[in-house]
Amino acid sequence: MKLGVYGLGRFGAFWAARLADYTDVVAFSRSPKSDIDPRIGLVSEDELADCDAVVLCVAISAMEDVVSRIADRIKPGTLVMDTCSVKVYPVSVMQSSLPETVQILGTHPMFGPDSGRNGIDGLPLVYSPVRISFAADSFYRDLFRKMGLHLVEMTPDDHDKTAAYTQGITHFLGRVLQDLHLEPSPIATLGYSKLLEIIEQTCNDPEQLFLDLQRYNPHTHEMRESLKYSLDRFMTKLKEVTGLPA
Amino acid sequence: MKLGVYGLGRFGAFWAARLADYTDVVAFSRSPKSDIDPRIGLVSEDELADCDAVVLCVAISAMEDVVSRIADRIKPGTLVMDTCSVKVYPVSVMQSSLPETVQILGTHPMFGPDSGRNGIDGLPLVYSPVRISFAADSFYRDLFRKMGLHLVEMTPDDHDKTAAYTQGITHFLGRVLQDLHLEPSPIATLGYSKLLEIIEQTCNDPEQLFLDLQRYNPHTHEMRESLKYSLDRFMTKLKEVTGLPA
Repeated sequence: MKLGVYGLGRFGAFWAARLADYTDVVAFSRSPKSDIDPRIGLVSEDELADCDAVVLCVAISAMEDVVSRIADRIKPGTLVMDTCSVKVYPVSVMQSSLPETVQILGTHPMFGPDSGRNGIDGLPLVYSPVRISFAADSFYRDLFRKMGLHLVEMTPDDHDKTAAYTQGITHFLGRVLQDLHLEPSPIATLGYSKLLEIIEQTCNDPEQLFLDLQRYNPHTHEMRESLKYSLDRFMTKLKEVTGLPA
Repeated sequence: MKLGVYGLGRFGAFWAARLADYTDVVAFSRSPKSDIDPRIGLVSEDELADCDAVVLCVAISAMEDVVSRIADRIKPGTLVMDTCSVKVYPVSVMQSSLPETVQILGTHPMFGPDSGRNGIDGLPLVYSPVRISFAADSFYRDLFRKMGLHLVEMTPDDHDKTAAYTQGITHFLGRVLQDLHLEPSPIATLGYSKLLEIIEQTCNDPEQLFLDLQRYNPHTHEMRESLKYSLDRFMTKLKEVTGLPA
């Protein structure tokens, strides 16, 4: 079984190395960096399309372009799996662009190079089977479990609803708080230290991921509106209770 | 050396027990609970005023009332120490209400029953000497260091400026986020789990502390305005970049 990872950005390089602990992995990158795990052979886009499975580790906003580039080169029976932080949009791109003979699996590993720095054991991976054989389904459930991951099966829409109010709100707040230039302090409370960790972790990810999370998840708009509503409500409440300007 | 703790609320009961590890502690409470550390003798308000030092563990908004209640009963040379989460206001109350013969020390232990649950070793305590003898100053610096605390000397105004953008913003966000009814999720990222911990920790404290932090710290108004400004800026930026409604 040979997996072909498409994209060796920050997440792709990390994910390819985790997969290489359990199976053969090759990878294609438009601009390969020098610090790629030595077990991962670099291949051309054509060679990648020839793998048993293609694991897409590209920006959400690049999905349409990348899927259309590989659609005609992939053999019948091959499995294409995305790893995007939203699910409805990339799954619909794969469904509309890939031939009927190609298998489709949506995944979202709920971690990255920062949160998985000390190992990924017990961390959640969202698993959305779309068009997949019994054998392939068993193989990938098994693989992810062997990797120590907590497999959570969800429909793409359930994922997006839940992720908007978990990962989505965290990334949104991380960016808003970064804008305030908060700094480490000798009088930091434990809670404030956690706030700084959230900023660091979310802002370490590419800005593209932040924008894509807010743009391609159909539920983040409502999340942002709710957050703004609650903030305004508290500003008003403080004004009423304390008699001070909000 | 006998310390008299005034107020056995959530923080007072916790702080009295920590102090009792190193010195004799008695306490006065208007409504004593049953689960007070057995080493702490309960005394009347008059007996408390007779201690070598009085440690005020009362709500910021109760400072004026409590200080004026004890002002006439305190012997010359006694030290009165507050533990409020803001410093300019309580220090000015103590300065204007206590006789010149009474010593005054501002402190802010930057932790509480939740963040100090597993011990207070290495946690910061803000130390603002106001009117204090050399001997008493040495004694309390020594006591807090023996307790393992990281003593940070600051003026009341420097404390309030810094605390607005550390503890103040954390508590404000904790309450705003609680309003959104965020819940634990099987697909929680590490960052989201930290967000939930912040909500739990800040909202476990009395609502009075939240309101007082926002009301009696002269710098939290600017902090809230900055937060709202950054949030609005990101809503607008997302609208521009993604072409979606903010």
